[in-house]
Amino acid sequence: MEEGEASGFCFQKVSEMEPLIRFFEEDSADSGKLLDLLVTNEVVERSKLRRLCELASHPSVKRVGVAVDDAGVLQVLMDEARAASGGSSAASRVGVVIEIDVGQQRCGIDIASQQGEETFVALARRLIAAHRDPSGHVSFIGLQAYHGGNQHVRAAADRERTVQHVAALARKALDLLRANDCLPEGEFLVSGGGTGSFPYEIASGVYNEIQPGSYALMDRDYCLNKNAEDRTESPFKNSMFILSTVISTASAGRGWVTLDAGLKAYAVDSGLPVVWQNDELDCEQAGDEHTKLIPRTPGNLAALAHFKVGDRVWLVPGHCDPTSNLYDWMVAVQEDKVTDVWAVSARGPGM
Amino acid sequence: MEEGEASGFCFQKVSEMEPLIRFFEEDSADSGKLLDLLVTNEVVERSKLRRLCELASHPSVKRVGVAVDDAGVLQVLMDEARAASGGSSAASRVGVVIEIDVGQQRCGIDIASQQGEETFVALARRLIAAHRDPSGHVSFIGLQAYHGGNQHVRAAADRERTVQHVAALARKALDLLRANDCLPEGEFLVSGGGTGSFPYEIASGVYNEIQPGSYALMDRDYCLNKNAEDRTESPFKNSMFILSTVISTASAGRGWVTLDAGLKAYAVDSGLPVVWQNDELDCEQAGDEHTKLIPRTPGNLAALAHFKVGDRVWLVPGHCDPTSNLYDWMVAVQEDKVTDVWAVSARGPGM
Repeated sequence: MEEGEASGFCFQKVSEMEPLIRFFEEDSADSGKLLDLLVTNEVVERSKLRRLCELASHPSVKRVGVAVDDAGVLQVLMDEARAASGGSSAASRVGVVIEIDVGQQRCGIDIASQQGEETFVALARRLIAAHRDPSGHVSFIGLQAYHGGNQHVRAAADRERTVQHVAALARKALDLLRANDCLPEGEFLVSGGGTGSFPYEIASGVYNEIQPGSYALMDRDYCLNKNAEDRTESPFKNSMFILSTVISTASAGRGWVTLDAGLKAYAVDSGLPVVWQNDELDCEQAGDEHTKLIPRTPGNLAALAHFKVGDRVWLVPGHCDPTSNLYDWMVAVQEDKVTDVWAVSARGPGM
Repeated sequence: MEEGEASGFCFQKVSEMEPLIRFFEEDSADSGKLLDLLVTNEVVERSKLRRLCELASHPSVKRVGVAVDDAGVLQVLMDEARAASGGSSAASRVGVVIEIDVGQQRCGIDIASQQGEETFVALARRLIAAHRDPSGHVSFIGLQAYHGGNQHVRAAADRERTVQHVAALARKALDLLRANDCLPEGEFLVSGGGTGSFPYEIASGVYNEIQPGSYALMDRDYCLNKNAEDRTESPFKNSMFILSTVISTASAGRGWVTLDAGLKAYAVDSGLPVVWQNDELDCEQAGDEHTKLIPRTPGNLAALAHFKVGDRVWLVPGHCDPTSNLYDWMVAVQEDKVTDVWAVSARGPGM
């Protein structure tokens, strides 16, 4: 992995991948570029796997991959890949990464256990056989070894230690593949890591693909991650805001003013938004369409005294992903000027 | 207020009102019906107030109203109403309800205090003067006296008691208007209440308009409201579901299976979804696109043993409003058959 190299895009859903393909076809300066696309999640519906296999042959696509942790799903995928090829062995193959559980405890095979090892090797054997079959329609392209929880371990030393555990499991998976003659020739991905932990995945020497994403916008939760005193951490800063408006000052003398942003404007799973560059005020959730600004120090009504109805307040959301998911559009601003309007075209539950 | 009488629709945003008008114009069996529309919230942007005033003259609209708790906003509204009338005193007037704070502590004037009383009467005087002006462009149509928190007070007796407090404040506001010659002739709304509390607002005799809404779909939170032993409560039951799919059973032996529904599929402000008609399983939040089903009784792996990848699981969300806000469409089902597909056309932060 070399500095500055970005070879593709990751997604959690087929429904997120399709808008990107359209964007690169229609709108992007990079129109015509071939896309290397990986769904870093399990896709199990036959109809979605069919769509994925069809997209593998899309003229804008170099490669499509998907995570698998189940032998039955692999069979459906192979069937659909064959059907999508129209019988041609020259058709684009669909890539598969086997997902292992490196401690995230969500999807993936638990190779820390004997039973999990056996399940993993059995799945890898079926997959490498299809990979080596000249008339097959899937490729064994790598391992998914992602640990999302690590991204938000606050102390850098703790994050580093947990990633070492993650990397050891990824290394074990590679060893199992090698020992069972299941490691394909050539490039083989070990994919994982994220915005909060990627320096440690890179340092492990095991990972050759990382999956950062939040760096593009950030949120309050990421800004709570701490840097170790003796090392330089990622230089990212928050750049995602909710531009709210004061709609009531009727109770400024009682301890709050009311904003027009509520549960339909931000996610609360990582706590409430904070007021941008303001240590005097906190947010208090007040409904689907309302938030109250309250003084951080009880009784500090002076912090509210200057607010007028119509004033703008910049909020920083607790968690950027489910917050951006609420919006159809984002407005890009640079030096107080609107420079672009971005469609949130992959918004939605995507189930 | 007579049984079965519904004279209009409430909204929190102008952006929610517009899709309903379009729906009644284009799609509804009630096309051509005149709509009585009230924004039960403060609208303070001049551009939004302008739009509201324009909609007052829309051919499908009988009346448009909005909540106000600020004299400056009332002035902007009057200016925009005059501008929208094109100078004609015969043009449609815009209705105004003054919002009082009946304990919700969000927007609205605190008439429990002496200072709030004075603010309230001063605002009412300005409004009634405009109302009585034959060439004016706003009408004083009522009071907004809404308490959202009451909807979720669990015990019926406690809900009844809090509504009595709310009704006493609404009665005080009416008395203040009467004593200051600010009560207009004819119909005058006292509007509030909701799905959880409306029997008590009706019983108070003060309210003549109620604002229920969640009854159409319901959620887990409403189903936690308790009925008093000696009275019949609302007969509503949950009818809103998230149809999720099992995407991983790799760890069923370790205590969970994984669903494709996460923070992009349900709101968590009122807790996690529950599994429909299943007392053995709970949901555990696992990310933006993932939820884990876990046994309610630790170690009860038998509750997970029957799950296969691809199985459907019906979830009941904690809070229906911010959950439905995540979707572009809902699928209506009756007796296991799809009967309709509903566009969530007013979705969005609406700020």
